[in-house]
Amino acid sequence: MTQNYIIFTAGGSGKRMQSEIPKQFIPVAEKPLLMWAVESFEAVIPDLNKLIVIPENHIALWKDLCRQFNFKTEHQVVSGGQTRFHSVKNAVEIIKGDGLTGVHDGVRPFPSEGTILKAYQAAEKYGAAVPCVDSTDSLRQVKAGESHIIDRSEIKRIQTPQVFHTKLLKKAYQQEYQDTFTDDASVVESLGTKIRLTEGNEENIKVTRKMDLRIAVMLAEFYK
Amino acid sequence: MTQNYIIFTAGGSGKRMQSEIPKQFIPVAEKPLLMWAVESFEAVIPDLNKLIVIPENHIALWKDLCRQFNFKTEHQVVSGGQTRFHSVKNAVEIIKGDGLTGVHDGVRPFPSEGTILKAYQAAEKYGAAVPCVDSTDSLRQVKAGESHIIDRSEIKRIQTPQVFHTKLLKKAYQQEYQDTFTDDASVVESLGTKIRLTEGNEENIKVTRKMDLRIAVMLAEFYK
Repeated sequence: MTQNYIIFTAGGSGKRMQSEIPKQFIPVAEKPLLMWAVESFEAVIPDLNKLIVIPENHIALWKDLCRQFNFKTEHQVVSGGQTRFHSVKNAVEIIKGDGLTGVHDGVRPFPSEGTILKAYQAAEKYGAAVPCVDSTDSLRQVKAGESHIIDRSEIKRIQTPQVFHTKLLKKAYQQEYQDTFTDDASVVESLGTKIRLTEGNEENIKVTRKMDLRIAVMLAEFYK
Repeated sequence: MTQNYIIFTAGGSGKRMQSEIPKQFIPVAEKPLLMWAVESFEAVIPDLNKLIVIPENHIALWKDLCRQFNFKTEHQVVSGGQTRFHSVKNAVEIIKGDGLTGVHDGVRPFPSEGTILKAYQAAEKYGAAVPCVDSTDSLRQVKAGESHIIDRSEIKRIQTPQVFHTKLLKKAYQQEYQDTFTDDASVVESLGTKIRLTEGNEENIKVTRKMDLRIAVMLAEFYK
């Protein structure tokens, strides 16, 4: 039987938000962001195997939160590595089979049903798929101290889940780490694989700044 | 005496949001977005001459709103043109002197004091200045049907107010309209002028989608 996976990255140290608790564990509308993320996938593709990558020193906290919030969704906890690359690599190494594997930011609580399904469907067909949304702002490109207008219709904002044939993702993560690896698509792309873009959703925000957390609270109240 | 100006564009027809009332006129926390925008400038540089460009068929609505919300901030209403370019051109043509002129989206209610001051100060020194913020998402560039990762540190999201030496802006708006004119910086840049980037603020959102309006409500409650 084909096994499909979703890996949640929850390795951020929370430095950028100067909060005591790493942001993936912050509750909004009575549930930590990471639980919102996991339940989004559970609701859409219930038979996905769920791996959550958490830094060693936060695993006890996560287990406490699961008890406290009565979080029953089945999942496996994987210890994080030194960087995001090494964290995902740890999870990829324990995955088996020739199905599909997605990687999702634990601080993106609200991927829509369409975002999740389209990414998995396109990955099945093309090998590698990532959701994106349009740029709503005018954009300028800064090079050598000067800025020039750039056609915003050419620039897409990339989201997660980024989904791949499991075998392709495993091969990609056997590479040496490079500075240009900013997300999983960039790791897979460096093998020469083309990345298919699928339709994301605007509410699928990445909670990194204080303002994002306020927006997440608002969206959670809307969805709960 | 040097005269400085701010032009507010309020020409959107509201089609994108499918709302009956154009979005600049939608009240959030008991005040239409456009009034939030105008008052942001009034609070920071009180002696700016304020021009508001409004489509002919919405001028009566705006005057009604001013009465209804007891809006007393002094301003001059200018009739809008067929496109954003022609609307700004209408306002630019009635401006006089050798001071500075800014152009601000009427649907950006929350430019910060720093955003406004830095743009005017840099424009005074360098001729043309626009506020920007970093890209928080990974970005991909789509060309000829394929997507490639692009270094997000090179790409800045552009905001308003975009501020210029008045004489430069007047000269720029004497050009024929081109499709590449997506904002005022692009109009001025086509004269060969370099655009200085200044620091914007994340809350200075452009309210175009339904979700933006929900975020604006939240920010307005925070600021009021």
